[in-house]
Amino acid sequence: MINEMYKDMTGKGSVIREFFTYANKKAAEIGAENIYNFSIGNPSVPTPKEFTDGLIKMLETKNPVALHGYSPSLGIDSTREAVAVSLNKRFGMNYTKDEIFMTTGAAGAIAHAIRCVVKDGDEVITFAPYFPEYVPYVTGTGAKLTIVPADIDTFQINFEEFEKALNPNVQAVLINSPNNPSGIVYSTDTIKKLAAILVKKQEEYGHDIYLISDEPYREIVFTGTDAPFVSAFYDNSICCYSFSKSVSLPGERIGYVAVNPACKDAKLIVLMCGQISRFTGHNCPPSLIQLGIENILYTTSDLSVYEKNKEILYKELTRIGYHVVEPGGTFYMFPRTPISDANEFCWKAAKEYNLIIVPGDSFNCPGHFRISYCVTTDMVEKSIPLFEKLYNSYN
Amino acid sequence: MINEMYKDMTGKGSVIREFFTYANKKAAEIGAENIYNFSIGNPSVPTPKEFTDGLIKMLETKNPVALHGYSPSLGIDSTREAVAVSLNKRFGMNYTKDEIFMTTGAAGAIAHAIRCVVKDGDEVITFAPYFPEYVPYVTGTGAKLTIVPADIDTFQINFEEFEKALNPNVQAVLINSPNNPSGIVYSTDTIKKLAAILVKKQEEYGHDIYLISDEPYREIVFTGTDAPFVSAFYDNSICCYSFSKSVSLPGERIGYVAVNPACKDAKLIVLMCGQISRFTGHNCPPSLIQLGIENILYTTSDLSVYEKNKEILYKELTRIGYHVVEPGGTFYMFPRTPISDANEFCWKAAKEYNLIIVPGDSFNCPGHFRISYCVTTDMVEKSIPLFEKLYNSYN
Repeated sequence: MINEMYKDMTGKGSVIREFFTYANKKAAEIGAENIYNFSIGNPSVPTPKEFTDGLIKMLETKNPVALHGYSPSLGIDSTREAVAVSLNKRFGMNYTKDEIFMTTGAAGAIAHAIRCVVKDGDEVITFAPYFPEYVPYVTGTGAKLTIVPADIDTFQINFEEFEKALNPNVQAVLINSPNNPSGIVYSTDTIKKLAAILVKKQEEYGHDIYLISDEPYREIVFTGTDAPFVSAFYDNSICCYSFSKSVSLPGERIGYVAVNPACKDAKLIVLMCGQISRFTGHNCPPSLIQLGIENILYTTSDLSVYEKNKEILYKELTRIGYHVVEPGGTFYMFPRTPISDANEFCWKAAKEYNLIIVPGDSFNCPGHFRISYCVTTDMVEKSIPLFEKLYNSYN
Repeated sequence: MINEMYKDMTGKGSVIREFFTYANKKAAEIGAENIYNFSIGNPSVPTPKEFTDGLIKMLETKNPVALHGYSPSLGIDSTREAVAVSLNKRFGMNYTKDEIFMTTGAAGAIAHAIRCVVKDGDEVITFAPYFPEYVPYVTGTGAKLTIVPADIDTFQINFEEFEKALNPNVQAVLINSPNNPSGIVYSTDTIKKLAAILVKKQEEYGHDIYLISDEPYREIVFTGTDAPFVSAFYDNSICCYSFSKSVSLPGERIGYVAVNPACKDAKLIVLMCGQISRFTGHNCPPSLIQLGIENILYTTSDLSVYEKNKEILYKELTRIGYHVVEPGGTFYMFPRTPISDANEFCWKAAKEYNLIIVPGDSFNCPGHFRISYCVTTDMVEKSIPLFEKLYNSYN
């Protein structure tokens, strides 16, 4: 008999996907150039040339049996080593390859990290607004995901609500900075304050609390933004990285878990990740792509278009009257909706103005909408009058 | 606190891995040419040139943003379509893309297929000898794996023991033909008999029983062997394929689930696979590799060396006195050990003769050893006198 839990899930489509599907249908009817699709976070700039060239060179010159051979279950040694060295050079850390586990993107990294440090009945805390897939990552382990409400004036951590939510069942805290969907980067002050609370609570509860830091947007930070490397501030920290956004490789499924060497179980947690893989049949990320990213650990795609788009959108939307907390990074912006029902607002935007934006409810933060501006600047500029008409239709 | 279950698993190394590690250590001491490493199933022949050329062409000519973009969660449409068409042409089936789910190898395929059709407390049956990773794939779902003892004279299905094992809790039967480790291919008679029993038991129990067919060695079949396409014989069948062995891409993690269109829930099961991925954070196989295998659905690596190695080993080992059931495919052979303790036998082989072979106990079939002959024919020929000395040391 088929499994009813997974069967039920197939009926529940993602709201983001609904808007995306609508956009595609409409584009087919009236032309893609007339649809302002700000619904998904697919990078719009090419991967660095070094990646493409590196892959071609390996394909042309390496023995295919070795090139496409099995990766060790924790990742290819040279790749793990190169990742460790790059983190040490860039952030003053002291990782060795034994603290690095290669994963299929941040999704794989987070799912593994959580499984390492929770069991059935435990609790994981995260902060609204948050990436909706955190729900299956956490509930799939049998643990409960507790949401701390957003501080909608800053989108930094709402510490008052966080302290209320903390209790001895909490084994892990999951953060995402720079943040999807707000675009906000947690400041050094925020991270220090968070770390201090966790240190205190570890002592109080008599057990470790792990800080799982989801960092796919780590390299997409705008001029002048304070963007601390989270793991430098807390011993029991697990960095979950993806190469999807910074080097525009979302389809190639490559990322890593880096466990802070200051965490006493760091090497053990990496070995545990290898065991967890056996249950899910996920095994390693592709060998070719692991080797490929060794060439681009110190570079990124040309990310300047995201900052340019942010500048235009922030300036124009605030001029029009939208309330926006200015993003410090990513390619997202999370303005308030002028009416309370974000779902109604976003469908009106889609149907009357061909503006495809996503309701904040999907990120557990109603009264807001997400703009993904990983698009051309031309499209951003042409969309401004539509955002203006949309806003004015409510005033 | 770290999860004790996964922690405990890190202490339990795989026996195959132990032999492999010993081989590498010894090779470093006395030279790789003096070690006869028959311990692992890593293909020894290159991937078809069409694969390499196809990848280079895409990297040189395609827009990198599209090429490395997100794959839809069920796999890239064109790849799913191409897989369906290839199965239909080759095996007279009628799959559409909606019955195909792209996975990270057979491991991902089996783990997803099992999760679709069992729940906590259910039972899955498999047949010794079997691939040891079936244990985590099944137990990871909360179901129990029941082993039917081997028919060691033929390595076809032991139907008497199978009928004894069947009971209303059994929701799935997991088979692997051509088989790792025996190299045996289930005959048309075996598959027909298996299907007939399942049809009868479905009626008796009043629920579906799924036949999950693990087929990474489907293309590695020797001259004259009867090798039926399993899904053609049973409606509720799920084919789990990997491109690791036939086109020598084990590190690139690519395979698929193909659900028999005659299965009433076929399309639903594929949608469910997409949902299961969300829990494991595994998502899709890499986009580049999905597109790459579209070029090689009707070809394989040059697999002739495996048949040649089989011929030599089978002829010589039987001449020496070993009892061997002649393989019909794969690159494995599974002779009886001349003493009952296969572990002792294999360590003696390793330490006294530099022959690295693996005890059958790892495959739940004691009294046998596995030879992986995905190696050069030269190495096979040079190993024969050592196999002879080893055998004679017991007589």
